[in-house]
Amino acid sequence: MDHLKAMLKRRKVGHSLEGDFYHSQAVLDIEYKAIFEKEWVFVGNSSEISNPGDYITAMVGRNSVILLRKKNGEIGAYLNSCRHRGSLICLEKKGHSNRLVCPYHQWTHDENGALIHAGEMPSTFDPVKHSLKTVNLQNMSGMLYVCVSDNPPDFENFKSQVEPYIGPHQPYRCKIAHEESIVEEANWKLVVENNRECYHCASSHPELTFSLTAFAMPDDPRADDFFTELMPKMVEKWEKLDLPHKPVLGGDKFRCIRLPFINNALSMTMDGSLACRKLLGDLEEKNLGSARMFHVPGNWNHFCSDYILHANVTPLSPERTQLTTKWLVHEDAIEGWDYDIEHLTRVWQTTNEQDCTLASNNHLGTQSIGYEPGTYAESEFMLTDFTNWYAAMMEKYLSEEV
Amino acid sequence: MDHLKAMLKRRKVGHSLEGDFYHSQAVLDIEYKAIFEKEWVFVGNSSEISNPGDYITAMVGRNSVILLRKKNGEIGAYLNSCRHRGSLICLEKKGHSNRLVCPYHQWTHDENGALIHAGEMPSTFDPVKHSLKTVNLQNMSGMLYVCVSDNPPDFENFKSQVEPYIGPHQPYRCKIAHEESIVEEANWKLVVENNRECYHCASSHPELTFSLTAFAMPDDPRADDFFTELMPKMVEKWEKLDLPHKPVLGGDKFRCIRLPFINNALSMTMDGSLACRKLLGDLEEKNLGSARMFHVPGNWNHFCSDYILHANVTPLSPERTQLTTKWLVHEDAIEGWDYDIEHLTRVWQTTNEQDCTLASNNHLGTQSIGYEPGTYAESEFMLTDFTNWYAAMMEKYLSEEV
Amino acid sequence: MDHLKAMLKRRKVGHSLEGDFYHSQAVLDIEYKAIFEKEWVFVGNSSEISNPGDYITAMVGRNSVILLRKKNGEIGAYLNSCRHRGSLICLEKKGHSNRLVCPYHQWTHDENGALIHAGEMPSTFDPVKHSLKTVNLQNMSGMLYVCVSDNPPDFENFKSQVEPYIGPHQPYRCKIAHEESIVEEANWKLVVENNRECYHCASSHPELTFSLTAFAMPDDPRADDFFTELMPKMVEKWEKLDLPHKPVLGGDKFRCIRLPFINNALSMTMDGSLACRKLLGDLEEKNLGSARMFHVPGNWNHFCSDYILHANVTPLSPERTQLTTKWLVHEDAIEGWDYDIEHLTRVWQTTNEQDCTLASNNHLGTQSIGYEPGTYAESEFMLTDFTNWYAAMMEKYLSEEV
Repeated sequence: MDHLKAMLKRRKVGHSLEGDFYHSQAVLDIEYKAIFEKEWVFVGNSSEISNPGDYITAMVGRNSVILLRKKNGEIGAYLNSCRHRGSLICLEKKGHSNRLVCPYHQWTHDENGALIHAGEMPSTFDPVKHSLKTVNLQNMSGMLYVCVSDNPPDFENFKSQVEPYIGPHQPYRCKIAHEESIVEEANWKLVVENNRECYHCASSHPELTFSLTAFAMPDDPRADDFFTELMPKMVEKWEKLDLPHKPVLGGDKFRCIRLPFINNALSMTMDGSLACRKLLGDLEEKNLGSARMFHVPGNWNHFCSDYILHANVTPLSPERTQLTTKWLVHEDAIEGWDYDIEHLTRVWQTTNEQDCTLASNNHLGTQSIGYEPGTYAESEFMLTDFTNWYAAMMEKYLSEEV
Repeated sequence: MDHLKAMLKRRKVGHSLEGDFYHSQAVLDIEYKAIFEKEWVFVGNSSEISNPGDYITAMVGRNSVILLRKKNGEIGAYLNSCRHRGSLICLEKKGHSNRLVCPYHQWTHDENGALIHAGEMPSTFDPVKHSLKTVNLQNMSGMLYVCVSDNPPDFENFKSQVEPYIGPHQPYRCKIAHEESIVEEANWKLVVENNRECYHCASSHPELTFSLTAFAMPDDPRADDFFTELMPKMVEKWEKLDLPHKPVLGGDKFRCIRLPFINNALSMTMDGSLACRKLLGDLEEKNLGSARMFHVPGNWNHFCSDYILHANVTPLSPERTQLTTKWLVHEDAIEGWDYDIEHLTRVWQTTNEQDCTLASNNHLGTQSIGYEPGTYAESEFMLTDFTNWYAAMMEKYLSEEV
Repeated sequence: MDHLKAMLKRRKVGHSLEGDFYHSQAVLDIEYKAIFEKEWVFVGNSSEISNPGDYITAMVGRNSVILLRKKNGEIGAYLNSCRHRGSLICLEKKGHSNRLVCPYHQWTHDENGALIHAGEMPSTFDPVKHSLKTVNLQNMSGMLYVCVSDNPPDFENFKSQVEPYIGPHQPYRCKIAHEESIVEEANWKLVVENNRECYHCASSHPELTFSLTAFAMPDDPRADDFFTELMPKMVEKWEKLDLPHKPVLGGDKFRCIRLPFINNALSMTMDGSLACRKLLGDLEEKNLGSARMFHVPGNWNHFCSDYILHANVTPLSPERTQLTTKWLVHEDAIEGWDYDIEHLTRVWQTTNEQDCTLASNNHLGTQSIGYEPGTYAESEFMLTDFTNWYAAMMEKYLSEEV
């Protein structure tokens, strides 16, 4: 704890974090409490639970949560831990049930998490005090965020600024065409930092950079003539279609922007062709580039004209991180006709694998006596944001706990 | 340590334990010393080492022990660690040797653990001071218990109360028909707690509850008419045969009772038929129900008319536990004629697998911020016993160490 | 830390170490700093990087280092961690490149480790301050040792005493005929201690002791008539050939001696026949016995007339250790003609496997409550050296850190 405080104190803004931040179980134990149990964490898409009784589970740090569609159309969000002896209640990633029944002793909860049956309990037992614990839930055009803290931070600023970018893609009207989780042999912060800069893209991600610009701001000095000519045309088109595009001022916590694709690409596919013939929402224009979005601790998204990519990071240990990626298309799109899974997923599957290798090599190198926090490049400004946010969260927690 | 003390202090009797008891290496490190190195721990059955020179090894917490049959018929019990540089001496679960020879440097011990050969040692070396360390051993009708502490707690109370129940089944005249170990992804206390209640049996163990009543006391309110009529008839039979049956008053540390089987079952098999045609000991009556026994930290047993089940739990890490199960039949029973391994073992193999799943889901859920110690049901009274015993052992250790 | 200091304080010279030295992550964390990041550590053979641009990587404790042959024939030694965000730069065990390019963001270094390209960095960025960190390197007749401390201990005493023994075998003119790494389930110190005595050889290593004497000094009381007659003849031969043979006085840190083989063996092979028809260096005499060498923390070697064996130990965790072994023959020897890999490697592959089993059983036994530091045999005098050196290094670190 003293070591952690000392590391935070001597941290230099605009530099990567000291090695022990990436290799210590003690640090991760605090991160669970200081970050994952304080912040809004992305957990899924509302369309994954379209019908009453549909549920999904997701991890918020070390906590499993249940997201359940109720009969009235609302979504209930509960900690997936029975109030009897703590067992997980829902064991699968997704399922369907009108009641949440603990598999251990059949304690049965209604769709509001209320305990409606608990066998063999004494007469003094009060079921009302043993309902499932609810967690705070926010739904932004179908994107679901959970905060397990009783005192959640503001969500409105994020939502009000970002939803206009996301809304036209109508995540709530999408279905999950494909989903996969990989485990990276790297600290979760290195996995996030890897995502937060595209300085490494040119050499590592030929598939991704066929469509996506490696830079993140339209006035980036790296923009070439092609881009400089393209940008005002796209701006004109977006504004005609009421699609906001300017960089959102999210401070350290989130980010959103709309940018054109390069190489005349229509979507993030190997050849730039559409991944899905059925466009998202009510969009009629194929060539829209994409909106990119990020929210701490580790959620990033891409919104094209034809598909949405959701990615989210969960730490498993100081040196292992789970990355879950979901590819969404219009709910009416037909597999084999409108879209092909391989064509849809190839670019980001490949990119994730490449990043997995980069992150694990980064992780191994940061345990060296030769590693000391290095200076970020200008194009790594989002890493300065991320590490500033991270350090502030950790410092806040440590100051309040003592 | 301070955290552990605080958790013990705020513990509520009749409630499950706080989450960190189940997920902390520091807690397990203390449990080894406070519990496994203080208590009597079940290690095996005397008939596993019938002949002079036969030995078995077993784990008592993190300590391997050797149980060796001596020429005079007595059993020697030694810590399996050479006094030279600490190597394991016996490497296998069972074997035969008239001398205990360390595989590292051939230090050779007689059947009493005395060092009788150590090559190349200086003239000042005193072999007498380098004998194997003996551990305390108790033999209850063939059931072997070891205590590695120099100051073992009382065993007589347990033995005098329980042996009359066990004796007629003559464990010492049984052979191991089958043995297996599984590793459960759960803290050892959750594995034990799972065993200490049958509140979960009705829904999880259809195979087991074909024969076994889910309740543990004859006057349980769940007893149905069938059972209520059956019980006095069985009592009459048991008393005629001098088979004690009333609940033993073992406090928090042990428990024994004899109860009838239901569904006209003769044994704990899939269809209730006998698992072995040759009955145990000198028993002549097939339909005896079974005696159930438990001893802390994690040993449970069933004694039917035709077979005995020994089960024992050893922690491997905070989240991994080894469960070793042995099925015993009369020493003269002939495989393929008197018994069939599959028929004998199916119910408890199945039950162990079911419990393994329950315990691992319980384990995962107790790391949730939503988990807090829950109230035990009335039928979980043995968990109150177990957690009271556990907490007392831990508090005692912590108070004495400081 | 207090526990470690107490263990060091109560340590008895001439006895094995207390159990917690072998089972604690906290102890290993300090060992990395106190030992592996202070001492000279063997990392490879100069001939592995014969041509400019050839490189190998090796672990010095938890630090990956790069050894690179420069154009002027010198060898550069660098910490394998980019000064940008810490990524490993060289990912493979060996390779070839005129420039060291970080795979993450293509930061490019010349053969001296100087940063000669870093894209997108601000104008204030000073590449000179971001060169790869060099580490101290010593080359003893082709055997490469690295010290990652800025304040390396003396190397000259070792080199001046040992090089005359090694030099005639010309490691720098050898090639790696075979290399392999195994992971032993034992603490690194137990792996080293296993190597530092041959008290266990007679019973465990029949293949090795066909050629190698189990004793380590020519006047050992175990020497038989065969050896006593052989020794003076060999001494006469060695002295005629200018091959030094007397035990080197390396104190606790290193050791070297030349001894005859027994059983008329010419080399350490299954039948004592030569492993390679082409002799090392300019040697013309086949029957030379071998020089044995050890250097802390965990490097041992054998120098025969026809091959060299390099072995080196790296801790992976408190209970896992990597042992890397390399078999070297004359650079002009031809596989299939002069030597056969199977014939060359069989004895030491077999010996390593046998030692792996011994070390893991030793490791398991030292966690027993029955284990206490045992007396070393006289023939284990090198373990007294090793533990004395180890304890002194640890004490020095702990006294300086506080």
